[in-house]
Amino acid sequence: MRFELTPLGTGAALPARGRSPSAQVVNANEDLYLIDCGEGTQERLRMAGFNFQRIGHLFISHLHGDHYLGVMGLISTMHLLGRDRELHIHAPQELKAIIDIQLQASGTWLRYPLRFHPTRAESGALVWSDAHVQVTALALKHRLPTTGFLFRQQPAPRTLRKETVHLIPHFRRSAIKAGEDLVCYDGTVVPNADLTLDPPLPLSYAYCSDTAYNPDLVPHLNGVDVLYHEATFTEHLAPRARETMHSTARQAATIARDAGVGQLLLGHFSSRYKDVAQLLEEAVTIFPDTLTAEEGRTYNIGRPIVQNS
Amino acid sequence: MRFELTPLGTGAALPARGRSPSAQVVNANEDLYLIDCGEGTQERLRMAGFNFQRIGHLFISHLHGDHYLGVMGLISTMHLLGRDRELHIHAPQELKAIIDIQLQASGTWLRYPLRFHPTRAESGALVWSDAHVQVTALALKHRLPTTGFLFRQQPAPRTLRKETVHLIPHFRRSAIKAGEDLVCYDGTVVPNADLTLDPPLPLSYAYCSDTAYNPDLVPHLNGVDVLYHEATFTEHLAPRARETMHSTARQAATIARDAGVGQLLLGHFSSRYKDVAQLLEEAVTIFPDTLTAEEGRTYNIGRPIVQNS
Repeated sequence: MRFELTPLGTGAALPARGRSPSAQVVNANEDLYLIDCGEGTQERLRMAGFNFQRIGHLFISHLHGDHYLGVMGLISTMHLLGRDRELHIHAPQELKAIIDIQLQASGTWLRYPLRFHPTRAESGALVWSDAHVQVTALALKHRLPTTGFLFRQQPAPRTLRKETVHLIPHFRRSAIKAGEDLVCYDGTVVPNADLTLDPPLPLSYAYCSDTAYNPDLVPHLNGVDVLYHEATFTEHLAPRARETMHSTARQAATIARDAGVGQLLLGHFSSRYKDVAQLLEEAVTIFPDTLTAEEGRTYNIGRPIVQNS
Repeated sequence: MRFELTPLGTGAALPARGRSPSAQVVNANEDLYLIDCGEGTQERLRMAGFNFQRIGHLFISHLHGDHYLGVMGLISTMHLLGRDRELHIHAPQELKAIIDIQLQASGTWLRYPLRFHPTRAESGALVWSDAHVQVTALALKHRLPTTGFLFRQQPAPRTLRKETVHLIPHFRRSAIKAGEDLVCYDGTVVPNADLTLDPPLPLSYAYCSDTAYNPDLVPHLNGVDVLYHEATFTEHLAPRARETMHSTARQAATIARDAGVGQLLLGHFSSRYKDVAQLLEEAVTIFPDTLTAEEGRTYNIGRPIVQNS
């Protein structure tokens, strides 16, 4: 089961330093889920080689421009490319009117269905569930209502044990994989534990951007495999972080440590940092398994990630 | 008097082939006028080295996404950079609501005044006039109300003749430059023609994108120094051009020839053309002084332009 993350933008509100605004792709079994969509995201998707039509869902955290201004262009390009598959948008309610007014102004009747699902910034609220993933909301603390997203793989079916698989008639196999015991013709019961192995644990990925330091997130992030957390500033600018409702690298690492996550990916770097090494240095003193996200790199969730540079 | 054009995007609606959506900069005496502003224009402005705060005016031809989706990002970046100079936007009326709803959704109170001027797609209508340029509208024929823009330098003052400049008291010089005769203390009248030379003729630049073949434009384009005209298709796809209300390269060249313009710059190339040489070849058979616009190249209006490649 493929479960990968590709950050496409690690910059903050002011574009600079060659960093792009927020956007990232979760690939779950070749179905693509786009989280945030700053200006120019369609170009970055193309550069990274993603097939637009594989994107079934857009999740928008909040309505600051660096997180959503690429939505209209992407919707429009999907239309021009002849898409017929429906597209789901999970976003603050106001985005619907913003999209509608622009479709109307350009006289566009989309060729494909656009399904809009308003989000609630309430930790644990179900956002979406399908065969590959379950997505729940994380209540972030920012100047606008802002939702983080927790992606969890759906539990895989149990694996049949090689040594006993010959006992199970074909028509019973999915029931056994789902956890049932095997009842033989003579009434003998073979317990499921003798027939199957535990499946791999479902992996999880959490996206927390933009947010002030918010310890209320900790129980919801408990044990996630990879946490992407914004780190707009260093501690040196903690007052500025408080004022703008962003986090410092140290605060991001504190959340990661307290939630006992697998690895921490930092992003949403202020344009004032030419080199993000200082943000990384600050974080690793609190939570050693921290990396700075790299644009266009694909991370395999569940395998240990190593910093490239 | 500097009068330059820098196209930043020569692509059509579907982004591809490394071409960017429509946007170009007119530099008149170091004041910058931005015509159209597709997604990612702010990035291209930065790459081309333009100072955002020198941009006083945005002119938007119509509300197809490839001509305006970069407006919100640019407005927002100007705000984050601390702009206080007012910004004028000349565009179809509907753009105002599109901007307002997004400023409201993001809770942004701009630090600088935004002056919105609705355009009328009526050839000859005055759009803007200041110390450097006069801008008038060109009624284009497209699927939405679409306005082209004709930029004309303001007439320069007359030039004082070196051989008679000593006759003119300093306090009279601007009046003489404005065309008045010189009346001496003894009542003698020196006619202006003995004191001044004709100034250089004001240069002109016309932007026609997007538009179907529209011969009604010809009298309005009569003698302009440089005409940028869309050439989305070759003649081979003339039916598609008619249907989508775009022009072929041949049609663009016909307008240029009939209006007797100085030079023709082709742009707005369909993504189906990997190489735009075939569009150029088609146009030069009708109007030899044709070039294909290059993104990021600066053209000095009034000096003959040579094709680079």
